Amino acid sequence: MGDIVTGSASLTDDEIARLRAETLGVKHVRHFNHAGASLPPQPVLDAIFGHLQREAEIGGYEAAAEAKDRLEEVYAQLAGLVGAAPADVALMENGTRGWDMVVYGIPFQAGDRVVTTMSEYASNVIALLQIAKRGVEVVVVPDDDSRQVDLDQLEATLDSRVRAVLVSHMPTNGGLIQPAEEIGRIVRGRAPDAWYVLDAIQTVGQTPLDMSAIGCDALAGTSRKYLRGPRGVGFVVVRRDRLDELEPPMIDDHAATWTGATSYELRADARRFESWEAGHALRLGMGAAVAYARDIGIDRISERVLRQAERLRAALAPLPGVTLRDQGLRQGGIVTFTHERWEPLEIKQFLGNRAINVSITTVQSTRLNMEARGLDAMVRASVHAITTDAEIEALAGAVEDLIRN
Amino acid sequence: MGDIVTGSASLTDDEIARLRAETLGVKHVRHFNHAGASLPPQPVLDAIFGHLQREAEIGGYEAAAEAKDRLEEVYAQLAGLVGAAPADVALMENGTRGWDMVVYGIPFQAGDRVVTTMSEYASNVIALLQIAKRGVEVVVVPDDDSRQVDLDQLEATLDSRVRAVLVSHMPTNGGLIQPAEEIGRIVRGRAPDAWYVLDAIQTVGQTPLDMSAIGCDALAGTSRKYLRGPRGVGFVVVRRDRLDELEPPMIDDHAATWTGATSYELRADARRFESWEAGHALRLGMGAAVAYARDIGIDRISERVLRQAERLRAALAPLPGVTLRDQGLRQGGIVTFTHERWEPLEIKQFLGNRAINVSITTVQSTRLNMEARGLDAMVRASVHAITTDAEIEALAGAVEDLIRN
Repeated sequence: MGDIVTGSASLTDDEIARLRAETLGVKHVRHFNHAGASLPPQPVLDAIFGHLQREAEIGGYEAAAEAKDRLEEVYAQLAGLVGAAPADVALMENGTRGWDMVVYGIPFQAGDRVVTTMSEYASNVIALLQIAKRGVEVVVVPDDDSRQVDLDQLEATLDSRVRAVLVSHMPTNGGLIQPAEEIGRIVRGRAPDAWYVLDAIQTVGQTPLDMSAIGCDALAGTSRKYLRGPRGVGFVVVRRDRLDELEPPMIDDHAATWTGATSYELRADARRFESWEAGHALRLGMGAAVAYARDIGIDRISERVLRQAERLRAALAPLPGVTLRDQGLRQGGIVTFTHERWEPLEIKQFLGNRAINVSITTVQSTRLNMEARGLDAMVRASVHAITTDAEIEALAGAVEDLIRN
Repeated sequence: MGDIVTGSASLTDDEIARLRAETLGVKHVRHFNHAGASLPPQPVLDAIFGHLQREAEIGGYEAAAEAKDRLEEVYAQLAGLVGAAPADVALMENGTRGWDMVVYGIPFQAGDRVVTTMSEYASNVIALLQIAKRGVEVVVVPDDDSRQVDLDQLEATLDSRVRAVLVSHMPTNGGLIQPAEEIGRIVRGRAPDAWYVLDAIQTVGQTPLDMSAIGCDALAGTSRKYLRGPRGVGFVVVRRDRLDELEPPMIDDHAATWTGATSYELRADARRFESWEAGHALRLGMGAAVAYARDIGIDRISERVLRQAERLRAALAPLPGVTLRDQGLRQGGIVTFTHERWEPLEIKQFLGNRAINVSITTVQSTRLNMEARGLDAMVRASVHAITTDAEIEALAGAVEDLIRN
């Protein structure tokens, strides 16, 4: 587990080669679904398999006791990743559940307003619509001409009724990276008591994240995407000085201590949002993924991801009938496109037959954005630092083969 | 994946030998912590490792697509285990979260009463105490002379104000198995609209469970204990005809579909309590564990567990200064004891040095029961079908060595 590489020199070809040599999956597939679930590197697999093996050998509780320090290190790694303290980190089954534990924990009153964006993820909006039944109003800030959230309109929306500002840092359906820091400055200036919750599920691991610089109160992330950790584990980080404002939506004997027949006391730290039982092997895998990414340097990963995404866009753009669909001023590793004739699912299946993994993103996942654009579905091809130019050529070449078919 | 063995012939020595040969851990430890987390058999490990391997080879989403039918089979296995339909089953990080999704989902009103027992698990009581803040009264039914819940007193407690009856089938701190079916008959007779929720986390895998016979509305269970599955996954089963009475405490785009800008629709089945992202490898491991147990026959496992627990009690009882602490008319695989001189933790550590795993159960976990008995902690030694007479002799012998030290 090394320190963050502070130099921002680009990843060298040798380094990319090493990262790929450590990634089993690149021998099997050309993976453009890192924004779904990436391919884990060997140290992640070693951490997961190693712990599962010990659980089988000596027992699940006994293995957890043996791994106590390494389990604590997961919190420290995540804290280091986002500029927080280990005590501010809570781990759970996935990032959405982390987001839930905070957002459902905000003591909304009837008449409160929640502000979000046009690109907010379906899970978050569905949760908000459920919360809205309590008399909470959901306000969606329009996009600006670049199709990121309109910062002037955001500012105009913020008043004393606004209890929460909820932003998907990078939507599931395109390269757009929302201007999280600018949003933070506006929220802190105009609605200092509002909860600014950043859903960083698509950005953690591909973009440097510093909660202080962003100014958010809570940040949710997941293991399986740009961090390249295992499925089934995620986290939320909550600002310590605001922790007590939240009522955890559900608690157990890990979140709280049963102090007397009719009394309990919440834990002092963010683990009050956790439950006791967990897949420790997955947590250790996520910790290994964070350590691995930080050893490389998130800034260097980020530079490479953005460069390869641009390369992919450049390779797809000239293909006849292809329309690139990414929006925003700043674009990350997700590349989306449609074709005038071939349906996204047909393209996905054609590519799948060539062992090229892409995914489909549909109106169900980002309804406000997609409906405004008149889109029902797009092909989503997401790159990572390990994505090579040859893979990009293979993807673009396969799309071209289909088109010219 | 075989059918339930309907014959109830005892497990033979050859079968025990086979089960042990399939259990890596028995070569490393003498495990008396099956009620904490058991030692998984090889088919469970194969299911977990196999899926993690595929995730690493072809991608996490792609591996889930490939395993689609096997993932569905997990629901069918669990449904078969408890006498429900696959659509009634929901999977989550652990059994407590499953219990939470139901109990926090009950639309309690101020003035409602919740009835529970003296042996209810800390996590459940802490959740109830949080719910009680809404003006809900928690009523604890006393035990009878055998120290199981007093059925007459339970009956006398049930009236129209009772919204829920919550029972830990087998408490964490002793052999007691609560009379779930008798409780069900009483609840159905006296408070037919109340939610009868059975926490079967300690009994699933060691006791035949039939939700219809029990008469419960929901049943929560976990993978890692008597089912011998992996850590980090559990389930809840909810009666279909009562599903719509519950408001899921948190929902995402798996629990509901985003149908329009301001509307959503809950799933028709119990998966409305799930979240989308999960550790599929762990789920497959749990499914393999259920299939493995059903192949053996839960009734045959149960008979062996009860027999070995009795053997262990018989081996410990004569030791000077040892007091057995198990309560109830019917006792399962958990054996608890104290010693007049040695503290539970000292005993655990002494045994641990001989590669004998036991655990400690403290007042924090079952406060009402333990305070009533004036107990702060006990040694908990839990057996399973794979527990041999030789292991029992080793445990009892080690305790004796400590005592005579």
